[in-house]
Amino acid sequence: MASEMTWSDRRAQEVLREVATGQPLVHCLTNIVVAGFTANVLLAVGASPAMVENVEEAGPFAAIAGAVLVNLGTLSMEREVAMRAAAAAAATARHPWVLDPVAVGALAHRTRFATELLASGPAVVRGNASEIMSLAGQGPGGRGVDARAGSEQALDAASALARVVGGVVAVSGVVDYVTDGSSVVAVPGGSPLMTKVTGVGCALGALVAAFVAVEGDVLLAAAAASAVLAAAGERAAARAPRPGSFAVGLVDELAVLCDEVL
Amino acid sequence: MASEMTWSDRRAQEVLREVATGQPLVHCLTNIVVAGFTANVLLAVGASPAMVENVEEAGPFAAIAGAVLVNLGTLSMEREVAMRAAAAAAATARHPWVLDPVAVGALAHRTRFATELLASGPAVVRGNASEIMSLAGQGPGGRGVDARAGSEQALDAASALARVVGGVVAVSGVVDYVTDGSSVVAVPGGSPLMTKVTGVGCALGALVAAFVAVEGDVLLAAAAASAVLAAAGERAAARAPRPGSFAVGLVDELAVLCDEVL
Amino acid sequence: MASEMTWSDRRAQEVLREVATGQPLVHCLTNIVVAGFTANVLLAVGASPAMVENVEEAGPFAAIAGAVLVNLGTLSMEREVAMRAAAAAAATARHPWVLDPVAVGALAHRTRFATELLASGPAVVRGNASEIMSLAGQGPGGRGVDARAGSEQALDAASALARVVGGVVAVSGVVDYVTDGSSVVAVPGGSPLMTKVTGVGCALGALVAAFVAVEGDVLLAAAAASAVLAAAGERAAARAPRPGSFAVGLVDELAVLCDEVL
Repeated sequence: MASEMTWSDRRAQEVLREVATGQPLVHCLTNIVVAGFTANVLLAVGASPAMVENVEEAGPFAAIAGAVLVNLGTLSMEREVAMRAAAAAAATARHPWVLDPVAVGALAHRTRFATELLASGPAVVRGNASEIMSLAGQGPGGRGVDARAGSEQALDAASALARVVGGVVAVSGVVDYVTDGSSVVAVPGGSPLMTKVTGVGCALGALVAAFVAVEGDVLLAAAAASAVLAAAGERAAARAPRPGSFAVGLVDELAVLCDEVL
Repeated sequence: MASEMTWSDRRAQEVLREVATGQPLVHCLTNIVVAGFTANVLLAVGASPAMVENVEEAGPFAAIAGAVLVNLGTLSMEREVAMRAAAAAAATARHPWVLDPVAVGALAHRTRFATELLASGPAVVRGNASEIMSLAGQGPGGRGVDARAGSEQALDAASALARVVGGVVAVSGVVDYVTDGSSVVAVPGGSPLMTKVTGVGCALGALVAAFVAVEGDVLLAAAAASAVLAAAGERAAARAPRPGSFAVGLVDELAVLCDEVL
Repeated sequence: MASEMTWSDRRAQEVLREVATGQPLVHCLTNIVVAGFTANVLLAVGASPAMVENVEEAGPFAAIAGAVLVNLGTLSMEREVAMRAAAAAAATARHPWVLDPVAVGALAHRTRFATELLASGPAVVRGNASEIMSLAGQGPGGRGVDARAGSEQALDAASALARVVGGVVAVSGVVDYVTDGSSVVAVPGGSPLMTKVTGVGCALGALVAAFVAVEGDVLLAAAAASAVLAAAGERAAARAPRPGSFAVGLVDELAVLCDEVL
């Protein structure tokens, strides 16, 4: 049985407050499509984003950051070397890192790469249903960044993957599910507009990184990040029903939520 | 004599409806400046963008995408190898691909590179007047991404280039012209604000890719993409006369146009 | 004693007018997070941005651009080679170039790299207090892109660095300071929201490049760029107190300021 978390849950509000006051440094190795949006989402909740993705610096920086995000959206030869180094450095420093396996399953190269990175023990893997199923060795994979399978279909794969990794797996969908392999937290809410704007899923991965940087209960942290983003999405959709202004409103509403807990 | 196409043309509306219902997967190899905006423009009309630009994946992904966009804005050594592979794979798979020769003419290296890519037979080449004239071997080239020559000055070059490539050439300007080397379609409208925001031309290249993915009449598809963007630009400019909010409004209005045809 | 510059200073308005009418070509080697925002900021004031960052083109393009921006945000092996070439080509062509030493001090690699680039004689170095102190060989460095030290604490370092470089150094903070090693100009104003949105500091570096492209008095040009951005920030904050819409409003207000001087 899944428990449920929403923004009205005081624990979600508490973790957001920890982020806003702790201002964790979040080291992002992410993609060229969403890098700016991701930084603005992190800034909106009070975190300190820093995108460092070159081979010389990714390892050393991961060792000083509060958490690391590795998002596979736009891989390059250099980014892959940097991602390996960052994941390994985070593991050595016992800093949590988050894997966002964008489009894994659709392309063999990144499926292998993501599988290899799992050895560095991500605190959280966050993806859509087809990405999580592929990474768990189930399902044929999607066709890229969009999820065709429902998040509930990936629950078994998510639990299995969480147990293999020894971490938490978050599956995004109409309802987000977050699991550590035994407990499952369902996060309902959000808005269909969140799938009509690029980078919302990627930004959730970044929020999860910020949240695990300040909250040691990784399952709680990841669920709280989902609940915060879902609440911001609902509020933004109510004010701005078109995608361009929705994306702007989503960042605004994250800042409003932040103000509410301070 | 050029025929004319605007948003009021039922054929333009019909192609947009094909995109919105077909949700074509558009593989974009584009630049770091406009990647996010491009993805949001594609999502606004219902297409599925995926930016994959590394050497291992660009070829295989082009073979499964509905169409491919190759935009030369911010080249890198790896991106060039990936672009060659993607264009060749699209040609082999007989999937249409679109070349956006950003700043060709201003820099010798990319002029040679774009010329080389033409051998893979793009379905559409979309650029401003100086880029198209340079690629056709005419004119001294511009100084970068802005067009100084009027689009009508590039009409002969566009026709010649279309015949050489065996495809369609689209020249952006106050009036856009789209030609297959014999017929010419003029697309008036739009707004001067479309030149005050980065990535509008690049987003048009991406829209053209989405439109040719679902519509086999390439001349019609490219003209319809121009007409849709022009209409969105006019509407956005009427609501938001400043560039920051105009860019947001442009994405909103594309989604509105989409709703109108569904 | 520092003199002061604000938007109400006719000299600031005059330099903005020179940019809007001269439309300088600004060659930006910048980072994946802020590239789009930077381009939109430059377009809003009438400048012509062009991001060219590959090894084959960065040198030749720097030689034809009005000014060059080198921003170290997201380094890569190729970008570093391109940056070296661009800085050297700008120096040879006696075109002004601006160094934005993002996160210098926090990471040894980029601290060495920035120090090396100083040999090519930037017209302006623009950074926050910890970056400037680190580059001047003072202070332990920050933890990334955010400034913990106040700008006034970096005044001595800025003056020393300006004298070593033979150029101007601008320190961003609650009050911006711009110095050539003897005179100091203080630029008050702006808004705390400017630190809650990614890329505002980076966009200031780009504005400085546009301003030095048209105004030979580098100290005046750099101070005017700060004053213009501060005024736009104040106006945007008055209309849009949340970060998402503030970023949009900042671009809008830059265009409004531009209209006011034309």
